Amino acid sequence: MLRPVRTLAKETAVVFNPKYPSPYQHVIMSQQFVPSFLEEVFVLADRIRADEASFRDTLQGFVVAEHFSEASTRTWYSFGAAAVRLGAHLVCSQGSDKFSSEVKGESLEDSIRVISGNVHLIVLRHVDDDSSRRAVAVSKVPVINAGSGKTQHPTQALLDAYTIQRERGRLGNLIIGVAGDLTRGRTCDSLVYNMAKYPGNTFRFVAPYNCKPKPGLLQHLREHGVPFTEHESLEEVVHDVDVLYMTRVQTERFDDPEEAQSTRGKLILHAHLAKHMKDDAIIMHPLPRVDELPKEVDANHRARYFEQADNGLWVRMALLTMLLTRQS
Amino acid sequence: MLRPVRTLAKETAVVFNPKYPSPYQHVIMSQQFVPSFLEEVFVLADRIRADEASFRDTLQGFVVAEHFSEASTRTWYSFGAAAVRLGAHLVCSQGSDKFSSEVKGESLEDSIRVISGNVHLIVLRHVDDDSSRRAVAVSKVPVINAGSGKTQHPTQALLDAYTIQRERGRLGNLIIGVAGDLTRGRTCDSLVYNMAKYPGNTFRFVAPYNCKPKPGLLQHLREHGVPFTEHESLEEVVHDVDVLYMTRVQTERFDDPEEAQSTRGKLILHAHLAKHMKDDAIIMHPLPRVDELPKEVDANHRARYFEQADNGLWVRMALLTMLLTRQS
Amino acid sequence: MLRPVRTLAKETAVVFNPKYPSPYQHVIMSQQFVPSFLEEVFVLADRIRADEASFRDTLQGFVVAEHFSEASTRTWYSFGAAAVRLGAHLVCSQGSDKFSSEVKGESLEDSIRVISGNVHLIVLRHVDDDSSRRAVAVSKVPVINAGSGKTQHPTQALLDAYTIQRERGRLGNLIIGVAGDLTRGRTCDSLVYNMAKYPGNTFRFVAPYNCKPKPGLLQHLREHGVPFTEHESLEEVVHDVDVLYMTRVQTERFDDPEEAQSTRGKLILHAHLAKHMKDDAIIMHPLPRVDELPKEVDANHRARYFEQADNGLWVRMALLTMLLTRQS
Repeated sequence: MLRPVRTLAKETAVVFNPKYPSPYQHVIMSQQFVPSFLEEVFVLADRIRADEASFRDTLQGFVVAEHFSEASTRTWYSFGAAAVRLGAHLVCSQGSDKFSSEVKGESLEDSIRVISGNVHLIVLRHVDDDSSRRAVAVSKVPVINAGSGKTQHPTQALLDAYTIQRERGRLGNLIIGVAGDLTRGRTCDSLVYNMAKYPGNTFRFVAPYNCKPKPGLLQHLREHGVPFTEHESLEEVVHDVDVLYMTRVQTERFDDPEEAQSTRGKLILHAHLAKHMKDDAIIMHPLPRVDELPKEVDANHRARYFEQADNGLWVRMALLTMLLTRQS
Repeated sequence: MLRPVRTLAKETAVVFNPKYPSPYQHVIMSQQFVPSFLEEVFVLADRIRADEASFRDTLQGFVVAEHFSEASTRTWYSFGAAAVRLGAHLVCSQGSDKFSSEVKGESLEDSIRVISGNVHLIVLRHVDDDSSRRAVAVSKVPVINAGSGKTQHPTQALLDAYTIQRERGRLGNLIIGVAGDLTRGRTCDSLVYNMAKYPGNTFRFVAPYNCKPKPGLLQHLREHGVPFTEHESLEEVVHDVDVLYMTRVQTERFDDPEEAQSTRGKLILHAHLAKHMKDDAIIMHPLPRVDELPKEVDANHRARYFEQADNGLWVRMALLTMLLTRQS
Repeated sequence: MLRPVRTLAKETAVVFNPKYPSPYQHVIMSQQFVPSFLEEVFVLADRIRADEASFRDTLQGFVVAEHFSEASTRTWYSFGAAAVRLGAHLVCSQGSDKFSSEVKGESLEDSIRVISGNVHLIVLRHVDDDSSRRAVAVSKVPVINAGSGKTQHPTQALLDAYTIQRERGRLGNLIIGVAGDLTRGRTCDSLVYNMAKYPGNTFRFVAPYNCKPKPGLLQHLREHGVPFTEHESLEEVVHDVDVLYMTRVQTERFDDPEEAQSTRGKLILHAHLAKHMKDDAIIMHPLPRVDELPKEVDANHRARYFEQADNGLWVRMALLTMLLTRQS
């Protein structure tokens, strides 16, 4: 089972609105995912993938809202497609920061209260770091965090783990390189919190001085006895990682545009560098990529980022099914 | 029956395009709603609410368009959800002022002509005060006004009346306080025109000097012998109203931003003030709220604005059903 | 059959991604349409129009994406409505230049790769002239070009030809006037390439000095022995054309706004001018119109532009059906 939000440790605790005591499961951070839950998601994702036609009416009669205030292609289309491929209906607002009543000064809480009166599940992307917790506190229906500011993107962590499981056959005993903007990115955090639960994993963080991992993340690893090393260049890690997880520099989240530009390009996985990786290593990237992952790498047999993106559909179909049909 | 647009009084008359004589019912202003029509909507809304599964295929084969050029959360999601929960399909344009051919200089009339060739009903929100009349004049399918500039928002009036009926058990013999920006708001107008039809109602308008009720509205009340009083502060009315309908200052419709800011905050229903209301009085608000309705009031047992918002779904499901399946 | 993109002449050749060899048919330019394909589309469009209920489940289980980065009303609603009226699901991004990961620097190719992993067909409108070719090179599913920069809009050409066939009873032996911004418009090109395949057609191009037909288009006509004449005023052509295809000046594509404004209005089909046309001539326009086609002309019995717009629905329903259910 998914670890209920309300049983999480204090620092991640959610205040529920007593007026709307929610019996539902929400997905707001990857710390919620216990291994048995991931296993359940992956088995169901594989079943749907193998026999999609049998699941066509699974969510008939359900309405899913996508409420997004930040740019998205993968998450937007894969949640939308996941919902309708299971027979659910979709009601969407892309660019909710421009088109919803938030432009008139409405609080996120009021917006979520209202949306949750019309639909059965809300997929929320929002610029505020604590947006999904605030949403969960008032929503009458399950909320899935599809990206909350700089903090988390838990369903990305799900599909990343699913990809590692499929491509490497295991989730533990791996050396995992994590490169890019670890200060502003949220997919890395979700990935690391998630993979840290499996025994035998070692992390190698690769980031320039202004993109270092968040202190809370490193603290979490230390507390749980998970080994990690820190690096400034890809050359130091390519030879021994089993999984190399690249991410882009989040230029839009820098305060200083010039600094953002100069940081871009400091961590590039050039094609000639990728050739030095172990033969069975895989290259992942949550996408979108900019210059950190040149197109030449697409031809490298280790490249798995497009498969990774495609995996999102099946994982999200499984997750929607579990949240909407197994409420207790 | 809904009063057909073409039989309305002269000042609200609609010119139909002779090339497309429409046999359909349109909803463009709350003056159209005769009490028997409201009764019919409410009964159907209650039936759908009580047994939604029976209505799942009601609108199968129908396509509903949402064409919105102003920000919306409640109306957007509740019409969208209403359509799909009844089995209709949805085709939408949110931010049509940015994404439709109106940016290339196309007239609203041409846009509506074209959209109406593809769908079975158009839900229109538009910045122009007379947009819904202009749309009705050329549309080949029913048009529902989901907000026309500063003038009307008739389905809000429907759900407001439905809420009053549910919460107070009657639509007449009520003292109704209406507070906020009565100059620029449209929900108040739609509410007042609608409730003025019921015997025994008295209105108490509460507004700063620059937010007074529109002259046409007061004239309408005088002509129909409906009593009303005007006030500048909530203190004058809280003790005797049965329904207090709060609205926000429409800052985005002020010409002078400074004036808008200074006006905000002149009419705040503070929690201590709300306690002086009659015990069975109810507090309503079309939402979004800004500072005129502090969150502390949410705990007041008289607060009904979230229930009011939720009622929109059922009322709009009823309305769509009536317009699409009972054409004559 | 539709002429496969890969067999097109060199100047229109498409490089396919060897990793994703596509067995699918894509629609990227009107040069693909051989007469037998048009005939097939038109017959199916007529069948659907005559008995839509029989086609309600034709695309059940399919998901269609609309991915648009330029303003659209006709194309947006007609593709959307076409998909859902056939039972397909719709997942959309309107304003993809603002809301998709392209704002984070993602290439169109990566976006299309990802979208194509979630849906069964992509309807793409994009500002880049070569966008649809680039999309086809990486997509795993059929792509329909719904407008590529200044170059093509092939489904517009389909519905234009369908309209000419319905209204004039033939596609050859016609004098076709094409007026407006032939430098920046794309519908004219698609129309001319398409109609040039039919014997006996003559084109009369009417455009100010800065809106002349593209050299490649005229070259194509010369090479295929299709007669054409060039004009600067509508007076020179109204008396002898069988079809007058008006288009607007694409002011948004001019580098110099003043030049754009002064060009607007040089080619206006005034009502008194339209009266001098042959009695059985028809006036077409892809819409949106601005001032080149005054509203007074709507009353002229030769006006067919609204019928033309309505035809888009049936033609697109036929096209979607053929692409999704007849893949080989």
